[in-house]
Amino acid sequence: MTGEFGLIGRLRRLVGSAGPQSPDLLVGIGDDAALWRLGDRIIAATTDTLVDGVHFRPDITGWADLGWKALAVNLSDLAAVGAVPRFALVTLGLPPATGPNPIELLYRGLLELARASGTVLAGGDIVRSPVLTVTVGLFGEVGVPPGADWRAHVLLRSAARPGELVAVTGTLGAAAGGLRLLLADPSGAEGRAPALVRAYRRPQPRLEAAPVLVGAGVRAAIDVSDGLVADLGHICEESGVGAEIEAERVPVHPEAARIFGPEALTLALTGGEDYELVFTGPEAAIARAADRSPVPVTVIGRTTEGPPGRVRVVGPGGKELTLTRAGWDHLAPEGP
Amino acid sequence: MTGEFGLIGRLRRLVGSAGPQSPDLLVGIGDDAALWRLGDRIIAATTDTLVDGVHFRPDITGWADLGWKALAVNLSDLAAVGAVPRFALVTLGLPPATGPNPIELLYRGLLELARASGTVLAGGDIVRSPVLTVTVGLFGEVGVPPGADWRAHVLLRSAARPGELVAVTGTLGAAAGGLRLLLADPSGAEGRAPALVRAYRRPQPRLEAAPVLVGAGVRAAIDVSDGLVADLGHICEESGVGAEIEAERVPVHPEAARIFGPEALTLALTGGEDYELVFTGPEAAIARAADRSPVPVTVIGRTTEGPPGRVRVVGPGGKELTLTRAGWDHLAPEGP
Repeated sequence: MTGEFGLIGRLRRLVGSAGPQSPDLLVGIGDDAALWRLGDRIIAATTDTLVDGVHFRPDITGWADLGWKALAVNLSDLAAVGAVPRFALVTLGLPPATGPNPIELLYRGLLELARASGTVLAGGDIVRSPVLTVTVGLFGEVGVPPGADWRAHVLLRSAARPGELVAVTGTLGAAAGGLRLLLADPSGAEGRAPALVRAYRRPQPRLEAAPVLVGAGVRAAIDVSDGLVADLGHICEESGVGAEIEAERVPVHPEAARIFGPEALTLALTGGEDYELVFTGPEAAIARAADRSPVPVTVIGRTTEGPPGRVRVVGPGGKELTLTRAGWDHLAPEGP
Repeated sequence: MTGEFGLIGRLRRLVGSAGPQSPDLLVGIGDDAALWRLGDRIIAATTDTLVDGVHFRPDITGWADLGWKALAVNLSDLAAVGAVPRFALVTLGLPPATGPNPIELLYRGLLELARASGTVLAGGDIVRSPVLTVTVGLFGEVGVPPGADWRAHVLLRSAARPGELVAVTGTLGAAAGGLRLLLADPSGAEGRAPALVRAYRRPQPRLEAAPVLVGAGVRAAIDVSDGLVADLGHICEESGVGAEIEAERVPVHPEAARIFGPEALTLALTGGEDYELVFTGPEAAIARAADRSPVPVTVIGRTTEGPPGRVRVVGPGGKELTLTRAGWDHLAPEGP
């Protein structure tokens, strides 16, 4: 097994050589969402699955939180391409012993975020499964004025250029910190660090920030699901650039810093599940984005000529930090 | 547990009361695919999941067949609403021990049908899972001429009226017969009944027949996935009508009849996985459909005033047949 990203590269080549192509497919495998042209409109589509024991543990994530989260991770993918959500299909894989009440709770959590984000629940599927799974397929739309170039109205992993600033919305490390506390003390974690636990259980996709970034002239973005370094790495791979992050500029969540001390920086760099947006752009675009964004924007580094795909994290003295784990790869043997 | 359809009804009420609504959602939960208006176009979206041990067994369904089938069941849902496929997202849930070669085989099977059906593979997700799952999200389009009423250009479960003819494409019972032979003798089944085994492993969604039905004036249809009686029952529930099937008119697959004798009728009525279309319409519409369809169309009965949701199967003497199992309900305790 070569890990998720090695396998995806292999399948991508296979699809490119053996699969049918279409001029209407604007963006396919390799970004946060697929973009498809339909007449004078552009659809964005994405899907993500949460699996019991892999992406959540029922003793830590309640049913309603699980429903919220299953939709949130998909909304975050749409935010990462600059799309507005329209409708969702939900597929539940249910162990035979599952009663109707937990499922209704799951739906209530999901519908709460659906209302908040204007996402209509349009259908789905329920199947028997030995393990609980929740899959959401989400469809949105990219607003492109008639006659305009669609590329100027989306955020892509492949649009970064060398010499741009790297910035991030909000703060990082809260969700990973919340998870760590919940694993250590499921009943006491919330009292000790409510903001961290909430960040883990009820992530807030950056749907309001995304169009502001687009309007400010930002073209390259991804959401932080696997971890800041890993996800910025995806931008670098798809864009053929390198990047350098200054560790001391990374906006660590204050509650994570209070509880975890210096280790909070590791959570912020590699913890994942923050669902913030990390993006790159020319200085003027980033300045406009920071000025207009409804959530704080922090510049954390720069893109470089290379090596392509490589993200360096440098400490206070300019010395490169070594990270034991660059992010969450679902198929890597060392994954949790 | 009230079974899949009881639970779906409950969730549907919850979504109707607590979820956001939109005038652009033309058809939501309760049909084979969701229909969404986007400007002057209509998108159709559907999703289906195959789970190891529930929907397939790896010793019986090879990897390439599994890929084919995962796309086929979704294409069949699009055919059942009269839509043309455009692009698909594929989510694999992979046990840690899965090597890259089987996954590539799976993709090759899927891409084979993607090419044959003009479906572009646009992305997806790969996650770790203790059990192998394949989820496809599929997007298509319904062709509605400018200014025309969209209802006259789709097939819906809810559009049947009393006193219509009930008809079906192709033949029934082949896939269930193939599965039965494969379970009894995995290595010998193909030699004994190649057409049945192929029907089970490589179902052919009725994408070419669907637009012909629409053009002929048919408005109500569903695909036969759970079994003829169960699926016609879904049309009856959504349309508030009853139906009567004449057992001797049901087009049993000839190879199933040869091997299973009189029991082949039970396979045809309740076996499922045929992925034919069962539909209803006025006599003239059904006659036109039969005349123009690229696959044989057989009239098998009539819709009635009621009782709503009830399907009766009558034998040669007009006597009602009792069926032990009306079809496949993934959540029913007696499911395989």
